[in-house]
Parts: sequence; C-alpha cells; structure tokens
Amino acid sequence: MTTDSGRPRHLTILGSTGSIGVNTLDVVRQLGGRDAFEVMALTGNGNIELLAQQARETGAKLAVTADESQYMTLKDALSGSGVDVAAGVSGLDEAASLEAEWVMAAIVGTAGLAPTLKAASRGADIALANKECLVSAGELFVEAVRAGGGRLIPVDSEHSAIFQCLDNDQRHALERIVLTASGGPFRTHSREQMANVTVETARTHPNWSMGLKISVGSASMFNKALEMVEAKHLFGLRPDQVEVIVHPQSIVHSMVGYSDGSVIAQLGAPDMRTAIGYALTYPKRPKLDVERLDFAKLARLDFEAPDEKRFPALRLARTALERGGVQAAVMNAAEETAFNAFVASRIGFLGMAEIVEEVMERLISLPPARTIAEVFAADSEARRTAVQVIAIREQAA
Amino acid sequence: MTTDSGRPRHLTILGSTGSIGVNTLDVVRQLGGRDAFEVMALTGNGNIELLAQQARETGAKLAVTADESQYMTLKDALSGSGVDVAAGVSGLDEAASLEAEWVMAAIVGTAGLAPTLKAASRGADIALANKECLVSAGELFVEAVRAGGGRLIPVDSEHSAIFQCLDNDQRHALERIVLTASGGPFRTHSREQMANVTVETARTHPNWSMGLKISVGSASMFNKALEMVEAKHLFGLRPDQVEVIVHPQSIVHSMVGYSDGSVIAQLGAPDMRTAIGYALTYPKRPKLDVERLDFAKLARLDFEAPDEKRFPALRLARTALERGGVQAAVMNAAEETAFNAFVASRIGFLGMAEIVEEVMERLISLPPARTIAEVFAADSEARRTAVQVIAIREQAA
Repeated sequence: MTTDSGRPRHLTILGSTGSIGVNTLDVVRQLGGRDAFEVMALTGNGNIELLAQQARETGAKLAVTADESQYMTLKDALSGSGVDVAAGVSGLDEAASLEAEWVMAAIVGTAGLAPTLKAASRGADIALANKECLVSAGELFVEAVRAGGGRLIPVDSEHSAIFQCLDNDQRHALERIVLTASGGPFRTHSREQMANVTVETARTHPNWSMGLKISVGSASMFNKALEMVEAKHLFGLRPDQVEVIVHPQSIVHSMVGYSDGSVIAQLGAPDMRTAIGYALTYPKRPKLDVERLDFAKLARLDFEAPDEKRFPALRLARTALERGGVQAAVMNAAEETAFNAFVASRIGFLGMAEIVEEVMERLISLPPARTIAEVFAADSEARRTAVQVIAIREQAA
Repeated sequence: MTTDSGRPRHLTILGSTGSIGVNTLDVVRQLGGRDAFEVMALTGNGNIELLAQQARETGAKLAVTADESQYMTLKDALSGSGVDVAAGVSGLDEAASLEAEWVMAAIVGTAGLAPTLKAASRGADIALANKECLVSAGELFVEAVRAGGGRLIPVDSEHSAIFQCLDNDQRHALERIVLTASGGPFRTHSREQMANVTVETARTHPNWSMGLKISVGSASMFNKALEMVEAKHLFGLRPDQVEVIVHPQSIVHSMVGYSDGSVIAQLGAPDMRTAIGYALTYPKRPKLDVERLDFAKLARLDFEAPDEKRFPALRLARTALERGGVQAAVMNAAEETAFNAFVASRIGFLGMAEIVEEVMERLISLPPARTIAEVFAADSEARRTAVQVIAIREQAA
C-alpha cells in the first residue's frame, strides 16, 4: 500500500496490543509489511513484552505505554532497537501527533478519546475502533474530523458493514440501517437465569474472540446500545432510522435499507481483519487471507426481534438517542462503572442496566456539552453517580 | 423523473403487456406518470385490449403489436386516441427506433433480440429483462451497447442485485458472484418424482408470480442456467466466478464476493418493481411503495448447494460457459424448443434437459458467431436439431 507519491503509507496504531491492534498488524503483514507501510507509533498498556516485540518487528519510530509505571520496563525492552519510548497521557498525545496519515484508534474506553481527537484534528484518516469517541463526544468528534479534513472509517464489523453498503451517491434514498446483534451467550436466557450468571459465562461470546469488556457488553447488549449511538453519528441518522435485529450466526454484519425496498447487506466470516483491511486500503479493497463464506455450509441464517425486556440496554440506547445531549455519554460512563462492579462481583449481571438507567434518570438535566472538557465533566459525573448508586444498593442489600 | 434539461424522460417499453411491462408501468405511475415520463412506444403481442389501454393511459406516441394479424384490432381499439399503430417485425423496429433515452427490453425469447439491439445501437439506456440478448448474442450485444454509448442495466432480480452490489471502483477486488435460485417447485423432488410432473405443477413458482416460460424454467432451473450465462457477459466474468446457491425464500436476490472476504448482498421482497425502479432512475434510487423487509418476520434464510444431478441445466450452463462460442445460444434455442414440446405434452419434464444436452453435443462444432445473423443461424439450427431429436424420441417411444 503506497501513497500516490509512491512512498509507503505512514500509520499509527493507538492500542496495538489489544485484539484490534494485533489483527491490524496481521493485515499490515499480509499487505506487504515494511515494504508497504511505515509504522510511526504503536501504543499499548500493560503488555510491554508484546508492545516491544511489535515495535521491533515493524520498525516503529515510537512505542508508548499508557501506564507510566511501565516506562522503564518498555525502555529496557526496546534498548538498542532505535525505537523511541514514551509513556502516559503525554506519550499517547505524542503518538497521536506524529505524522501518520492513517491512524487506527483502538484504545478501549474514554481513554481513547483525547489521542483520537488529536489525530483527527491534524487531518489523519481515522480507522475508528474506539466506541466512546462517537458515543460520548458524538457531534464534537465528527466535527473535529471534518475540520481536520481526514476520513472517518469505522472498523467494528457492524459499522464497517454499513459503511460498505452505504453508497454515498444514494444517501438521498437511505431509509434505515439494521444493526445485527449475535444476542450473545444469554440470547435465550430468561431474566431469572441472567440474574445469576457469572463473569466467566458472560465473557464467552459464541462467535467472536474478544476482550472482556466487549464480551460482557455483548452479553448484556450494551455493546449494541453503544453501536446504535455510534451509527447515528457516523451516518447522520435520526433515532428512528436505527434498527437492531438479533442474528445469532453473526454472518450478516449489518444492513442498509433503501427507499426502493432494497436492503444491501455485508456478510463475512466473523473475522475483524476484513473490516480492518477495508479501513486500511479504502476506497480499494485488499486481498486478504481470511475465510471465504460457503453458503451451502452455512445452511441457514436466523433473525429474531430483540427483546428489550430481557436486554434493557437497547431501550436505554433509544432513550439516549432521543434525549440527545450528554445522555449517551452518561450511559456509556455509567455502564463502564457498572461493568467494573459486575466484574468485581459487587453487583449482578442485571444490575448493570438498572444502575445505568438510574444514573441516566438522575442526570437527565445535564446540559449538552459544547467542548470535550464538558464531555469529560459529564463522563466523570456519571461515574461518580454510578459509584454512589452502587454503594446505596450494597448498603440496602 | 426529469432529465438534466428538465424535460420528462422519454421511455419505450418493448413488451409492455407481460408481467415486466405491467410492473414497469406501475413504477412509472408511482414516480409521477405523465408528469415525469413521456412514453414513446409500447409493444405487445396478443393482449390487444391491455396494450390499447396502456397506450391511452400513458399517451404513448406509438403502440405496436408483434402479431401482424392483430393490426386492425389494435388500430380499432386506439381509434381517436392519437396513438400511432404498427405491427410485426417492422413495427417493433419502429418502436425501438423512436427517440426514447430509456428502453425497457422485456420481449420474451429470441424475438426480443432485434429490437433491443436496435435501441442499443442508437445509444438508448437499456433496461434488460430479455435474457436472450446476452445468452445468445453475448459479446455482440455487449459490444453494440458499448458502441451505442448507452448504459446496460439488468432488470431481473438476480442481476439487478449484483449490479447494485458491484461497486465499479472495486472491480479489481471482485472474486465471484453468487446467484441465488429458489429451487422452484421441485426443489425437494427426486428425479423419479420429476419424471412425472405436469405443466400445471411446473408452473407454480413458490415465491414469484411470473409467466409460463419463466415459471417452468424456474422449475427446471434452466432459468438459472441462462442467468449464469447472462451474468458472465453483463459483468465480464470467468466461468469459475459464477456460483449458484439454492435459497428457497428468494429474499437474498444475489451476492458479490470480494477479495477481502466480504460478501455484499441485495435483499428484498419478491417484487420486480424494485429492480425495475432501480433501472429506471439509476444511479439514483426511487421511492417505491413496495413491501419493506421485516427480518424478525422472515425469521430465517436457508441455503443449499444446488444438485446438478437433479437439475442438469446448471451443469449444461457451465459446459456452455466453458465451451464459449454459440454453445449458449444453442442451449437457449434448444431449451425453448424443448419447453414447447413439454407444454404440448410431447416430452416429460426431465426430457427437456436431455434434449438440450443432445443438441449441444450434436452442434459442438458450430463456429463462433461474428454477426447477429450468425447468431440467428445457430439459433435456427439448434431449433431444427431439437425438433429432430424430439421426433426421434417420439418414434422410439
């Protein structure tokens, strides 16, 4: 992949040691590695060994650990390699600032917001895997990308599917998008069964191999709730244009419905490298060594209406979309806090949605954010409120 | 639908009284009727009453019956309407010659070839519903459209689906197309059961309401065989890039597979107005009053490998694709003749494929056609040969 001028494309991976980052480097390797791409910066968190190994392999200019206490460990691991080392928030900012024209934004959670905004503001093409940029900062983030002049290309499979199906010349005819959801490990569970599930069962996603946060989010469908908000901002939709359908096989990654009755769908094996590759070489498609679909072997694709009684996250997302303002940021921050409490066994699985709903109600009067600082303020207030709500529940129990 | 200059788009429908024609006029009506479109010519065959009614309603300049013996009947039916009347081959030629920038080519069978070629040669955009233009005249027809300078937009649901899914900027990444086939009314029949089916059961298509020829072609999968050849020419494919998958619900209309593992599919209710509307307003999409898909209601989509033992038409199509030359024209002409013999109860259902195969083998040495006249010659020879083969079978029985 060379630029028009013939030199290798410069890229940076914010979050290179997570599953998106590892898969991105696999795609880079498949498409020619150092002959085709020049890696500017790689960032990770606690997995220093992997980060150092990636930096050596790619010949990255800079490796950054978000964890400041790991600075010396990373420095030692890369001694003699010629790779610069940095750490912490300022290190992430430095990584985002380096002149890479393509940046994979794959840092999980609110921590990914600042460096992604930095890269967007300087005009890089953003391959977006971080949900919070759109969920929490929505309009502000989209505006930052627009002002920077780069492209925003979604990387998670659902939004990549919609991006692939949405012909920009036919935006006039867009009626709806249909996000598919696997339904997660508790798709057929009753509320009673869900009340007693453990973190270990909640993390077992049927189709995708993912991190803990995303796996539990898939089980509660909070993942899908965040994706509904993301889709609204990515594609400029009204809340009523965002549909969700449960599709247990995760083969149809999402769909776009048009005013002539046509639905265009993107399908594929559950392999995030397809979406990553699409973002990396867009508007061209790369040639990837990934599984090809065999429809006779698939045999059937199932679809079910989502049940908002068993999965209240979807109802909460619709509420957040309709209320606008910082309600989606509040939902996201409260969910992260509730997720941590669930992982710590302080609340049950169903408690997560209950806490998010209560926090959203308590903070219904927060004003819309005009700056990123105000997004962070709303995020912090939602986390504080969630902590309180969790503490009150524990006292009551 | 107005042209760039603001005047209504001029259109002609070759074959306006068949199901494609009737649906085309419904779409025209939905998109504004005489305010948006100026109908130049309508052509039909024996259904004079409907043809006259359509001509009066649309204010067509010319109405043509292909059946010369019906000329006076049509003339009488349109007396005082201001609609010019013509008949026979010269009438069809006149209809195709009138200056309509968009022509629906929906005359069934080889009879549609000459007028469609005429319209293509003068540079009209061709909405193609006639299969034979591509099956029999393949390269010659595509070259005529190219030389004329108009666009070729497929109208049957499978090719429209591929046309909709095939981003022209991503042709470099095209790996395969997957044509879906309902499997027809005999999808689960054994060969023994198929041996004894009647015309009446063969015409009962499970999903689509269509004419007799197409319904029986769907039952034998000769329809799909012709579509395989069509797809090759429409999209410039190698034979091994054309796949068929049985999909009983006819919701996925066809798919395109790319080199990054992505499959893009077009789905819709079984309603040909979607594909017709797409062809009429391309590259925009129209707003149509057709059913929208409800995935929860659909519940499931099934896929099965096609069985070439029970449906030899698919094997014959692959043979024709690989042999090239006039083998597809021979297959098509022999199939029309065999179909007529089946409808006349002179041969059984399975006899159709046997006759086509024997004719293809007998005419394997026919040279490629360099002109349309040579296509017609091959077509005629295949029909004559098929008649002989049928007669020999009857004598043997």
